[in-house]
Amino acid sequence: MYRDGVRVREVAITDKVDCVHEKSEFVWIGIADPTAAELRTLQQTYALHPLAVEDAFKAHQLPKVDVYGDQLFVVARTAYLEGDTIAYGETAVFVGHSHIISVRHGSMRAHTGLRTDLEATPTLLAHGVDYILHAILDFISDGYLPMVETIELEVLEMERRAIDNFLGRAEISRIFALRRELMRFQRILVPMGEVASKFVRLELPCIDKESRPYFNDVHDHVRRVQMIVDDLREVLTSVFEFSTLLEQQRTGGITRQLAAWAAILAVPTAIAGIYGMNFENMPELKTQFGYFVVLGVIASACSGLFLWFRHTKWL
Amino acid sequence: MYRDGVRVREVAITDKVDCVHEKSEFVWIGIADPTAAELRTLQQTYALHPLAVEDAFKAHQLPKVDVYGDQLFVVARTAYLEGDTIAYGETAVFVGHSHIISVRHGSMRAHTGLRTDLEATPTLLAHGVDYILHAILDFISDGYLPMVETIELEVLEMERRAIDNFLGRAEISRIFALRRELMRFQRILVPMGEVASKFVRLELPCIDKESRPYFNDVHDHVRRVQMIVDDLREVLTSVFEFSTLLEQQRTGGITRQLAAWAAILAVPTAIAGIYGMNFENMPELKTQFGYFVVLGVIASACSGLFLWFRHTKWL
Amino acid sequence: MYRDGVRVREVAITDKVDCVHEKSEFVWIGIADPTAAELRTLQQTYALHPLAVEDAFKAHQLPKVDVYGDQLFVVARTAYLEGDTIAYGETAVFVGHSHIISVRHGSMRAHTGLRTDLEATPTLLAHGVDYILHAILDFISDGYLPMVETIELEVLEMERRAIDNFLGRAEISRIFALRRELMRFQRILVPMGEVASKFVRLELPCIDKESRPYFNDVHDHVRRVQMIVDDLREVLTSVFEFSTLLEQQRTGGITRQLAAWAAILAVPTAIAGIYGMNFENMPELKTQFGYFVVLGVIASACSGLFLWFRHTKWL
Amino acid sequence: MYRDGVRVREVAITDKVDCVHEKSEFVWIGIADPTAAELRTLQQTYALHPLAVEDAFKAHQLPKVDVYGDQLFVVARTAYLEGDTIAYGETAVFVGHSHIISVRHGSMRAHTGLRTDLEATPTLLAHGVDYILHAILDFISDGYLPMVETIELEVLEMERRAIDNFLGRAEISRIFALRRELMRFQRILVPMGEVASKFVRLELPCIDKESRPYFNDVHDHVRRVQMIVDDLREVLTSVFEFSTLLEQQRTGGITRQLAAWAAILAVPTAIAGIYGMNFENMPELKTQFGYFVVLGVIASACSGLFLWFRHTKWL
Amino acid sequence: MYRDGVRVREVAITDKVDCVHEKSEFVWIGIADPTAAELRTLQQTYALHPLAVEDAFKAHQLPKVDVYGDQLFVVARTAYLEGDTIAYGETAVFVGHSHIISVRHGSMRAHTGLRTDLEATPTLLAHGVDYILHAILDFISDGYLPMVETIELEVLEMERRAIDNFLGRAEISRIFALRRELMRFQRILVPMGEVASKFVRLELPCIDKESRPYFNDVHDHVRRVQMIVDDLREVLTSVFEFSTLLEQQRTGGITRQLAAWAAILAVPTAIAGIYGMNFENMPELKTQFGYFVVLGVIASACSGLFLWFRHTKWL
Ligand SMILES: [Mg+2]
Ligand SMILES: [Mg+2]
Ligand SMILES: [Mg+2]
Ligand SMILES: [Mg+2]
Ligand SMILES: [Mg+2]
Ligand SMILES: [Mg+2]
Ligand SMILES: [Mg+2]
Ligand SMILES: [Mg+2]
Ligand SMILES: [Mg+2]
Ligand SMILES: [Mg+2]
Ligand SMILES: [Mg+2]
Ligand SMILES: [Mg+2]
Ligand SMILES: [Mg+2]
Ligand SMILES: [Mg+2]
Ligand SMILES: [Mg+2]
Ligand SMILES: [Mg+2]
Ligand SMILES: [Mg+2]
Ligand SMILES: [Mg+2]
Ligand SMILES: [Mg+2]
Ligand SMILES: [Mg+2]
Ligand SMILES: [Mg+2]
Ligand SMILES: [Mg+2]
Ligand SMILES: [Mg+2]
Ligand SMILES: [Mg+2]
Ligand SMILES: [Mg+2]
Ligand SMILES: [Mg+2]
Ligand SMILES: [Mg+2]
Ligand SMILES: [Mg+2]
Ligand SMILES: [Mg+2]
Ligand SMILES: [Mg+2]
Ligand SMILES: [Mg+2]
Repeated sequence: MYRDGVRVREVAITDKVDCVHEKSEFVWIGIADPTAAELRTLQQTYALHPLAVEDAFKAHQLPKVDVYGDQLFVVARTAYLEGDTIAYGETAVFVGHSHIISVRHGSMRAHTGLRTDLEATPTLLAHGVDYILHAILDFISDGYLPMVETIELEVLEMERRAIDNFLGRAEISRIFALRRELMRFQRILVPMGEVASKFVRLELPCIDKESRPYFNDVHDHVRRVQMIVDDLREVLTSVFEFSTLLEQQRTGGITRQLAAWAAILAVPTAIAGIYGMNFENMPELKTQFGYFVVLGVIASACSGLFLWFRHTKWL
Repeated sequence: MYRDGVRVREVAITDKVDCVHEKSEFVWIGIADPTAAELRTLQQTYALHPLAVEDAFKAHQLPKVDVYGDQLFVVARTAYLEGDTIAYGETAVFVGHSHIISVRHGSMRAHTGLRTDLEATPTLLAHGVDYILHAILDFISDGYLPMVETIELEVLEMERRAIDNFLGRAEISRIFALRRELMRFQRILVPMGEVASKFVRLELPCIDKESRPYFNDVHDHVRRVQMIVDDLREVLTSVFEFSTLLEQQRTGGITRQLAAWAAILAVPTAIAGIYGMNFENMPELKTQFGYFVVLGVIASACSGLFLWFRHTKWL
Repeated sequence: MYRDGVRVREVAITDKVDCVHEKSEFVWIGIADPTAAELRTLQQTYALHPLAVEDAFKAHQLPKVDVYGDQLFVVARTAYLEGDTIAYGETAVFVGHSHIISVRHGSMRAHTGLRTDLEATPTLLAHGVDYILHAILDFISDGYLPMVETIELEVLEMERRAIDNFLGRAEISRIFALRRELMRFQRILVPMGEVASKFVRLELPCIDKESRPYFNDVHDHVRRVQMIVDDLREVLTSVFEFSTLLEQQRTGGITRQLAAWAAILAVPTAIAGIYGMNFENMPELKTQFGYFVVLGVIASACSGLFLWFRHTKWL
Repeated sequence: MYRDGVRVREVAITDKVDCVHEKSEFVWIGIADPTAAELRTLQQTYALHPLAVEDAFKAHQLPKVDVYGDQLFVVARTAYLEGDTIAYGETAVFVGHSHIISVRHGSMRAHTGLRTDLEATPTLLAHGVDYILHAILDFISDGYLPMVETIELEVLEMERRAIDNFLGRAEISRIFALRRELMRFQRILVPMGEVASKFVRLELPCIDKESRPYFNDVHDHVRRVQMIVDDLREVLTSVFEFSTLLEQQRTGGITRQLAAWAAILAVPTAIAGIYGMNFENMPELKTQFGYFVVLGVIASACSGLFLWFRHTKWL
Repeated sequence: MYRDGVRVREVAITDKVDCVHEKSEFVWIGIADPTAAELRTLQQTYALHPLAVEDAFKAHQLPKVDVYGDQLFVVARTAYLEGDTIAYGETAVFVGHSHIISVRHGSMRAHTGLRTDLEATPTLLAHGVDYILHAILDFISDGYLPMVETIELEVLEMERRAIDNFLGRAEISRIFALRRELMRFQRILVPMGEVASKFVRLELPCIDKESRPYFNDVHDHVRRVQMIVDDLREVLTSVFEFSTLLEQQRTGGITRQLAAWAAILAVPTAIAGIYGMNFENMPELKTQFGYFVVLGVIASACSGLFLWFRHTKWL
């Protein structure tokens, strides 16, 4: 329990704490991967709505803000890199006049650091539950940028490679995998942005008008991440189109070379074939220098063709 | 007929039951594939609007909410897997102050289980017709997720195969069929989501404000299914583009191999052709080791070309 | 002229009929491909707006609703199959408090049947001009579905053929033609849907609130046709993409076969070329079974290559 | 200066004409490619806003409506065909209570005809400045349709040729050029439509509510042109896709023919090569009819292959 | 500090200047790449909101307008060409009733010229802080057009080359790079346009209604740049598609030539092969003119084929 920005005492989850008079007095409870029993206790103590409790228990929600009478239920999604893929966690927050309860699923970073930071600045903590909610959303959305920047490095490296070389099967496969990861992340970012913007645009219970610039700041941050993700997706699509066009050009170029060499080599084959015939009366065969003339003709024809194909850029 | 959450008696469809005083008193009638006569009887008993009755009879409507004076007419679509394709059923619901009539077409799961469940929780049943309507919509939309998850397994298996192998004609055909099934399902999901969100956003007759969170929950569920379907469609499109690019690369690679082998084999053909000519004066033919020198030259030239093509990755 | 749903007398187009007192008293005039003179007479008799009269005369309008003071001007487009293409007609309707005038261009089905049907149900006819307007719009939009279903049969037949075979030039040409027909039809359907929805959403002169469900029904019908058309267009696009990918795969497969046979046939050519040289000292030529050994070597090499290509699925 | 629809006298651009009492009394000034000095004079005489004057002087604006206090500033774009490309002109109009000043840049058709027409119908001219403004916008948008119809003829001719033949480089180049012209024209049409619709939807100074149907008519006209342009762009895109698919099919067909002929011609080459070897002991060479048997074998094998390829449609 | 459009004295950033009475009295401070300390001082002197100060310090914001009580915080992005890429700067502006503070990051053009220009026109400067803000936004957006026109020249040169020639790898690479630059610039332009339009549409503190036309002018300018960028992007995409189709046609053409020459050259090879066989009984070999007849047959067959391929446009 906090009063005027200072932690006054620990509360058990069955304690009903009522502090209606003072906005700066409230209880902040944080639990991770709760059991059904824990949630049921909290539900009874703080009159949480059964539908909200069910969502907090089951997880796999999209980011959203639900209003239940004078309480709020907020779902946010955390995201972090796990090897090559983006892993998602989920934080559900129940907000009432004098309580704020956060329920975490699979998010790796506990809120302990956040709590310590806030307790270090009692003037901020004294603003009440809306400020805590903002701090949680800010904490979550601050986790997006470093992750996206790591992906950006890989995407730009991909792009560089696509311009210098032809892409192999593994690289193409990675481009598609990255594009998919970004597409999925965007499906989380869009409703996260909407959650933040709802606190800016709408009158919601427990949220003071004074806190709007803070939620607007979260919205800005999410929008910026969204723009980078949009950009990365388009870079990947460009890399894909670029590779397709280059591969097509390469095949075209090889077809031209193949055609040129086939033409050049057809000359000795055809001429030699003719003088390899066994007719009895073939006058050229009997001349003294016929063989050397033919060799010369073959050499000139081949060189001529070679130079011609060079000239037309086929070779 | 139900009063305060308890089934008080059976009613025939010609019985007019009027229980204006009490929200918790209402009649719940469920029929499947009704005859025109049955619907006409119900229409007269409960003053249903002729246009609504016509829609309930003809089926093949899109999900929608129509307001007829102080009554509501709701159409929802059920979906289930039938072999490889999604089959659709249709449930039309007439809602009045003290009656709720559901008309099912082609939906495989009867509402009997739903009715039993609700009768087991009289406190919920006592909420009135809006709660029953929510329960029906929830029952229908809960059927979407397992179906979509079955499709997801197939799509992910497809994707895995596309990355490891080249796709055959049957697999490509299946990708297109799946994409189409999902596209069609999305055409049902979008208006289903709109139906649910109308109960959240609009003032509608027979629907209490207290029931909004329940309809919001249905909306959430539909939205989540929608997001998965969006995702699956994009995976299928990616698999398609990926296969196209790989096939193009494969053809390019084979063209290169073809060109390389054609060049290597052209060497013995050309040289042998020349020494196969029948000129009388071809000095090389008379030397003792000319044949072996030529064999050596052919072997070296072929090996040289082979190594060169290896070096340039054409072979 | 109609009163209380019953036709009371014929009116000439120059007769001014004023029946302000009674909604159920009105004049219903229907003309097809009118002359400028006829329209000018009607304009003077019923105070029609010159811009509306011009549109009704010139035709080639998009579906729309225009409000001119206390009168309405509605344009709808009819559509029917004419051989392989969709032909369009146009029906303009002037609606006033006690008159409704429909002007048809190029639409094949006259409204006589419609008029007979309505006169058979005087209770409906007694609703007034808004009901007549609804009946005309309904009549027109009811003509869309059978047409679209005819096209659907052709599209599905196309799809079936594309899966079983490679498409020829004529079939590809037909796919593009169909796609274009559907695209054009959709350009009519979208504003037709907007026209219907305007009568549902907006307060318009001459239109009672009670008639809204009837216009909503037309809107529903148009929306359903729209959804089928959307679906058919996407099927055609899929057929096109599917054919492109299959054609690409086929060319790839043939390139592989070509390469394999070229390799197999290069073996006898190269070996035979070598033993066809005319060197005097070629010891193998003098051995007794050299020829048969070489034949055997050629046969084994060719069989070996053939089996190898079979193994790699190139043949 | 006009009063009650009649031209009462000429005014110099420095004359301040104030006729506040009567809507039907106003000054109509038209200038083309004005000097800065002329515009400065007009600005002082009629209190035009400096930003509007700047826009009218600089040109290259998009169509728009700006409100400056109780005056309006409207920019419209004219379009006409100049050889193969669409050339654009610009007409800026200042509208005040008792003045309307049009400034033309590069538009070929002067407003003289328009002015004569209007002076011929004083009842219309008496409506005031809003009617003049409508007449100018109508005059401009009426110029779009004949131009678009000329382009339509070319596009349909293109389509016909693409279906009958393969397109050459020049034709493909023209398709891309046309597509671009239409794309650019659409960038003008969209804001032109918005300008017209603003006069219908918004309360604007100097514009009476009675004139709305007239502006709505302009909007309709622009919308219809837009729809044709949309259609033409899609036809061009279809022609492009169609050509791509046909070209791909053609290359596939030629690859098949190439493979078939290569196979057929490999038979005599391989067999003749074998009997061209110089082994001393080749029993077949000594038989009396060996040569003819071999010729027969070659002929049968080639015919057999030819018939087989005919059968599989490769030839 | 300015009063009635005249600079009255210099102010240090720690001076608190309060001039509530008079709109034309205000302080205009401009700093570039500020230290944290400078910003902290300004924050204390002018009661700037901490979130705004943080954004002004950290930079990398998207263009936006934030309202903090009776102060505004505006972020705009400058853009200029740096070699081949667009470099971005950032200008943040704090606006209060009697102060305007601009903070520049990485923008190359200082506001000194702007300040000198404004001081030269005291009547404009006397309008107050909203006019200064407009002047800054106008200064920034005026920088876009010349940059876009430079890019336009390059794009049009690209297009011209694509029509006349086949594009090389470097040119394709440049097309993709340009497309990406434009895509990124558009991500700045869209919110810049929104910033300008907010000052036109919304009631914002410190902004008089009289200044709306000025911000509308900025909006117009940004919109025009946006349209050019849209156009350039579509030209680049067209160039890309055009090159793809031409490359495909070229490969098709070469495949046809290859096939034709292979057919022509197969004739002498096959015939010569046959007469090169060593059968003892080959009557033609003994005839006097057999050789010349065969030469003639070969020549005729080759010429015939050549003419045939010319006729079918394969050669
Ligand atoms: Mg955003
Ligand atoms: Mg954004
Ligand atoms: Mg987005
Ligand atoms: Mg974006
Ligand atoms: Mg975005
Ligand atoms: Mg795409
Ligand atoms: Mg959809
Ligand atoms: Mg959704
Ligand atoms: Mg969603
Ligand atoms: Mg969606
Ligand atoms: Mg979705
Ligand atoms: Mg989406
Ligand atoms: Mg469209
Ligand atoms: Mg639509
Ligand atoms: Mg629709
Ligand atoms: Mg629809
Ligand atoms: Mg649609
Ligand atoms: Mg649809
Ligand atoms: Mg596509
Ligand atoms: Mg556009
Ligand atoms: Mg448009
Ligand atoms: Mg339009
Ligand atoms: Mg339109
Ligand atoms: Mg349009
Ligand atoms: Mg359009
Ligand atoms: Mg814009
Ligand atoms: Mg724009
Ligand atoms: Mg734009
Ligand atoms: Mg634009
Ligand atoms: Mg845009
Ligand atoms: Mg595309």
